[in-house]
Amino acid sequence: MRILLIGGTGTLGSAVHKALTGRGHEVVTVARGDGDLRYDITDPAQITALYAEAGRVDAVASAAGSVPYRPFAELTPDDFTAAFRGKVLAQIELVRQGLDHVAERGSFTLITGVLARVPVLTGSAASAANGALEAFVRAAAVEIAPRRVNAVSPTVFTESLGRYGSVFPGMRPVPLAEVADAYVRSVEGAQTGQVYEL
Amino acid sequence: MRILLIGGTGTLGSAVHKALTGRGHEVVTVARGDGDLRYDITDPAQITALYAEAGRVDAVASAAGSVPYRPFAELTPDDFTAAFRGKVLAQIELVRQGLDHVAERGSFTLITGVLARVPVLTGSAASAANGALEAFVRAAAVEIAPRRVNAVSPTVFTESLGRYGSVFPGMRPVPLAEVADAYVRSVEGAQTGQVYEL
Repeated sequence: MRILLIGGTGTLGSAVHKALTGRGHEVVTVARGDGDLRYDITDPAQITALYAEAGRVDAVASAAGSVPYRPFAELTPDDFTAAFRGKVLAQIELVRQGLDHVAERGSFTLITGVLARVPVLTGSAASAANGALEAFVRAAAVEIAPRRVNAVSPTVFTESLGRYGSVFPGMRPVPLAEVADAYVRSVEGAQTGQVYEL
Repeated sequence: MRILLIGGTGTLGSAVHKALTGRGHEVVTVARGDGDLRYDITDPAQITALYAEAGRVDAVASAAGSVPYRPFAELTPDDFTAAFRGKVLAQIELVRQGLDHVAERGSFTLITGVLARVPVLTGSAASAANGALEAFVRAAAVEIAPRRVNAVSPTVFTESLGRYGSVFPGMRPVPLAEVADAYVRSVEGAQTGQVYEL
C-alpha cells in the first residue's frame, strides 16, 4: 500500500515507519521540518495543500499531535484551544479532507493516548483532547464506510520512560514496536471505529 | 445549598431546577436571555463576570452546551471549533474559573451525552465534544479535590422524542426527572470524576 504517515520522523512515527516499510508498504512521511513532504497539519489550509501534493493513497496514519501539560488551575483557555487545534482538529481534518484522497476501503489511523481513560496530574488538556478523538473515531466510522478510521491509544512508551515516566507513576509502559503493531493492525485489518488501547 | 444552575431555563435546566428546589436548595439560574443572571458562558470573560456577580456558591450545575449536527463530510473546521467553544471550553472554564468561588467541598456537574459512547449519523462533532468532557472530568477530579466534578451523560430525553427521536433510532429514552436525579446525586453526594450514564 501507499501510506501517508504524518509525524513520520518523530519517536513514534519512526517506529511506525519501520513497521510499515518492513511489511513492504511505500511510506510517505509528513512533518513540519523534515518529512518527505513538509506541512503543518494544525493549519487546515496546509492539509488541503498536503493532499493535493500527495495524490492518491491507500491509508493515512497519524503519529502527530501536541498538547500543553500544566496544573489544571494554570491551564488557560488558550492552552485548551491549543490542545484542540494541535491534536483534535488537526487529526479530524486529516480524516475529513482525506475522504476524497484515500482508496475506497482506505483507512485513517489516529493517535490518542491513555489519558483518555486514566487521569494524571497536569494532564487535563491532554485527557480532553484524547477523549474527544476517541469518541470522534467511533462516530466518524459510521459515516465514512467503507473507508475506515481507528485510533491507537498507548500508555507511556518504554523508550520514553526516562523523560516522561514521572508523569505516569506505576503505570506499565508499552514498547514502541507494540504500538507500531497497532498501526499495522488498523491499516491492514478490516476493523473500523476501534480504539486500540495499549 | 446555594447552587448556580447554568442553562437553568431550558428543557433540561427546568427539570434540574425543579429537582433541586424541591429538595430545599436555593437555585440561581444563569442563561443568555432569561435567567436570574444573564451571561453567555461561551465567552470566558463573561464567566469571570458571572462569578463576580454570583458570589460564593456551594455547587455549580451546567445544563448548557450547543453543538452543530451535520453529516461528517459537511462539518467544517468552524463547526468543530464551535462545538469545542460552545460545549467543551465553556464548561471547562466554568470549573477552572469557579475553583475560587465554590465551597471547599463544592461540586461542579457538567452535561455531556450518550454520543460520547454511541455514534449516530450527523453527530460526530457532538461525539467529540462529549468525549472531551468525559475524559476531562476524570482528569480534573484528581487535581481539584476536595472540590468535586462529575458529568451527567444522558441519552435522548423521553420528553424530546418527538423532536429528536429520529436521530436516536431504537435507543431507549430517559425521562428528564431521572436525568435531574443524576444532578442531585452529583451535588449532594460524595463522588468525583464520575460520568453518570443514563
